[in-house]
Amino acid sequence: MKKIHFKNLEEYFNQEVIIEGFVDSIRDLPYVQFMVVRDVTSKVQVTIEKNEENASLNKIVSDLTLDSTVKITGTLIKNEKVKLRGMEVIPKDIIVTSRCLEEMPINYKDPSSSLLDTRLNYRFLDLRNEKNILMFKVQTKLINAMRAFVLANNFVEIHTPKIISAASESGADVFAVKYFEDEAYLAQSPQFYKQMAMCSGFERVFEVAPAFRAEKSNSYRHATEFTSFDIEMSYVDSLEELMDFEEDLFIAGLKAVKEAYEDDIKRLFNVEVNVPTKPFPRIKLEDLYIELEKEYGFKMDYEDVGDMNAESEKLASKYIKEKYGHDFVFITDFSAKKRAFYHHRNNGVPVGADLIWKGCETTTLAIREHNYDILVKQAKEKGLGKDVAFYLDFFKYGCPPHGGFAFGVDRITMLLLGMPSLKETMFLFRGPNRINP
Amino acid sequence: MKKIHFKNLEEYFNQEVIIEGFVDSIRDLPYVQFMVVRDVTSKVQVTIEKNEENASLNKIVSDLTLDSTVKITGTLIKNEKVKLRGMEVIPKDIIVTSRCLEEMPINYKDPSSSLLDTRLNYRFLDLRNEKNILMFKVQTKLINAMRAFVLANNFVEIHTPKIISAASESGADVFAVKYFEDEAYLAQSPQFYKQMAMCSGFERVFEVAPAFRAEKSNSYRHATEFTSFDIEMSYVDSLEELMDFEEDLFIAGLKAVKEAYEDDIKRLFNVEVNVPTKPFPRIKLEDLYIELEKEYGFKMDYEDVGDMNAESEKLASKYIKEKYGHDFVFITDFSAKKRAFYHHRNNGVPVGADLIWKGCETTTLAIREHNYDILVKQAKEKGLGKDVAFYLDFFKYGCPPHGGFAFGVDRITMLLLGMPSLKETMFLFRGPNRINP
Repeated sequence: MKKIHFKNLEEYFNQEVIIEGFVDSIRDLPYVQFMVVRDVTSKVQVTIEKNEENASLNKIVSDLTLDSTVKITGTLIKNEKVKLRGMEVIPKDIIVTSRCLEEMPINYKDPSSSLLDTRLNYRFLDLRNEKNILMFKVQTKLINAMRAFVLANNFVEIHTPKIISAASESGADVFAVKYFEDEAYLAQSPQFYKQMAMCSGFERVFEVAPAFRAEKSNSYRHATEFTSFDIEMSYVDSLEELMDFEEDLFIAGLKAVKEAYEDDIKRLFNVEVNVPTKPFPRIKLEDLYIELEKEYGFKMDYEDVGDMNAESEKLASKYIKEKYGHDFVFITDFSAKKRAFYHHRNNGVPVGADLIWKGCETTTLAIREHNYDILVKQAKEKGLGKDVAFYLDFFKYGCPPHGGFAFGVDRITMLLLGMPSLKETMFLFRGPNRINP
Repeated sequence: MKKIHFKNLEEYFNQEVIIEGFVDSIRDLPYVQFMVVRDVTSKVQVTIEKNEENASLNKIVSDLTLDSTVKITGTLIKNEKVKLRGMEVIPKDIIVTSRCLEEMPINYKDPSSSLLDTRLNYRFLDLRNEKNILMFKVQTKLINAMRAFVLANNFVEIHTPKIISAASESGADVFAVKYFEDEAYLAQSPQFYKQMAMCSGFERVFEVAPAFRAEKSNSYRHATEFTSFDIEMSYVDSLEELMDFEEDLFIAGLKAVKEAYEDDIKRLFNVEVNVPTKPFPRIKLEDLYIELEKEYGFKMDYEDVGDMNAESEKLASKYIKEKYGHDFVFITDFSAKKRAFYHHRNNGVPVGADLIWKGCETTTLAIREHNYDILVKQAKEKGLGKDVAFYLDFFKYGCPPHGGFAFGVDRITMLLLGMPSLKETMFLFRGPNRINP
C-alpha cells in the first residue's frame, strides 16, 4: 500500500488506512487516548477508547514517548467533533517504528524557548518545526522552477570542480585544502569555469552548487559555505538582455512558489509572496545616491561612493518601494575600482548591475570582458598575475561575447520568507564559529 | 532580435537572419569565399562572392582565423548545391566578435591526434568537439528528467554542507581543509546529512552535489571529486521498494534522453539508448558466484566472496545480458563485513543491493539501521567511535525507518555513452595527478 500523505486523507473516509509519522501529542485520559500523528504534510488524530478489546493498544500508547514514530493501521472516519480537520483514525494496530529515547534538548515547537546556538547544535530537531520544513519545500519549488525556466531556454547544466589549484579572483578569503602532496583551494565561485564553458561553445550554462568563502564575517547574510545558482550566457548584446533574463527567471520562480505555498507562507511566516512586474526599476548608482540624500539625508563615504553597502542597499529598496511600489531594483554603473577585473567596461564604467531585493543585494550581473588583451590589462591593474593566468588562456582561442550572474540560494530563500538570518535558513549553517553538526 | 539556433534555420528561408558562432572552416577561393559557422546546435555555410561590392567583407574573411567568433547579418537562402544542409547565408555584414590569436595546441576535431593528458590540459578547447558538447546536453537531460521524477514524487531538495568537522564514514581517504584555526574535512558523501533529514521529518530528500574522495586511484571510474545524486526516503518497508523506485528513476531519465537525443547519440557515439524494462533482474551475490563459476569458470578470492570487484561486475553484466537480455542487475545479500555500519541487517545480512549497469557498479542501495542501540553496536564493531558520535545522536529522538541510495552523475553519463573513462566524461576531471585547469 502506497504511503498516504496526511494532507490527502480526505480521500479515504471510511476506508482502512495505514498512516506513518511522528507522535506529535498524546492525551491519555481515563476513558480514551488521543494521539496526534504528524507527517511531512499535515497531522491527524488517532483515537483509542480504553476497553478490554483495546488493552494491548492502550498499553502501547501509555508507554509511548512523544516524537517516537509509529505505523498505524486503522479506519479513517469523519467526526465533526474533532477539532483537528474533523476526522480521526480508529486503529486496529499500532507499531512503534522508533522510540524517542531521551528528553528533548530543545522545544522545536517553540524556537524562542532556546538560544539560537543551542537550536543550531540540535538543528536535526530544530528542523522538525513546521516552518522549517515548509522553508525547504518552498526553496525546492523556487529553485526547481528556476531550473525548469533555464532548461526551457536551452541551458546546459555543468558541474565545475570545487577543488582548484589557484585561488580564484582575489586570492584572499579562500580555504586551503591539502591535496595529496600539494596545496589546493576551495572554489569561491564557478565564475572562471562557467566562463570557460563559453569559450568551449556551450553558449548557455547553469550550475547550482556549493561555494566557499573563508570570510570571518558574522553578518546575518554571510556564510562560509553556501549554495550558488550560477548563470552564464553567450551572444548577449547588452546588460539589458541580462537583466531582462533575470527578471523572467525570478518571476518564474516566485510564480511557482505563490501557486504552491501562498497560503502556508502567509500562515506560518506572515509574508505575502509578490510576483514582481516587468521591468524591474533600474537606476544608476550616482542617481540613486542623489535621491537617497534628497529623500533621507543619506551620504555615502567618499571612498565608497562607487559601491554600495548594507545601509545604502536597505535605503535603495525603501526608496524604490515608496516611489515605484516595487520590491526589486537594478543598480547600474558601479565604479570599476569596486568591480572584478573580468567585467567589461564601457568608457571605463563596468557594464553590470546589482539586483537588490527587499533591502539586500542578491545578484551581481555583468557583461564579461572577452577580449584577451583588454582582459590581461584589467587583471594587471588589479594586481592579479599567476593565479589567473590559466583563466586568461581561455580567451586566446576565440570566445563569444557573454555575460552572466549568480545568486545565493540560501539568501533568496531568507529574503523570500523574511527570515532573520542565513543561520536559520540554511539546512546546516557554516560560519567562522560554526562547523557542527 | 532573438538568437536563432542554427538547427532551426529552416524556419527562416529568404529572411534576414543574424547568426552568431565560431568559425568552423574557411575556403578562400579565387572567386568566392566559403565559411562554415558553428553554434551549439548545428552549422551553416556563409557564402561571399569576391567582387567590388563585397570588398570589405572579402577582406574580413581573408584576415579571419579559424575558431574566431563572428556575428553575421545576411539573407538565408535555399541552395541544393550546398552539401551542408542545402542552405547558405549571403552576408551583408560580418562582425568579428573575437579573434583566435594563437595556433591551436590541440586539434579538438580529431581527439586521437593528441595525448589524453594534453587534451585535458586544454580541456576548454577539447570540449569544443561536438561529441563533448552533446555529452553535456545528454547529461543535462538525464539528470533533470531524474530531478523532475523525484520532484513529482514529493521529494524535497537539500543542500548539505561539504565542509565537515569529522571525517565521515571510514575516516580514511578524506581531504583535510584548514578552517580558520581548526582542521576540517571535505564530505565524502552527504550520507549522514541526508539521513539527518529523515530524523528531521523531511521524509524524502534528494541532493545533486559534489563529493570528495582522497583516493590515489587511477582507474577509469574514479575521480577525487565527482557529482553525486543522492536519494533518501522514509517509511520504506523493504529493499524491493527502494529497487523499484530506482528502476523508475532510471527509466524516467533514459526515456527522456532517448526521446531527445537518440539519433545524435547513435551518430556520434555509436551507442543505442535502451530504456530498460521492469523489474530489473535481481540475484543474490552467492547465487551469482555459483553461476559465474559454472558459466565462465570465474572464482572469487575467498576473503572477497562477500563483495564484488571490477571483474565480477563485468561478468555479472555479461551473464545477465546473455540470460535475460537486460543491461541492469541488482545484486543483493553482500556480506556485513563489506558493507557500512549503518546498513540495516536481517539475520546478519545487510538489507541492500548494488545496481550494476553495463559491467560497472553504479549504486549501492540500502535500508538504514534506524534503531539507536543497534546502530551504536554496529558502529563499534567497525571500530568507529568519536567521528560518528554526532551522527548517532540523530537517532536518539525518534527516526522513521528509511533507506536510500546514490549514484555518480559522471559515472552514469560515462556508461550511458560508452565513454572510456571519467577523465573524458567530466567537465574538468580531478584525480591524484590532475587538478588543472
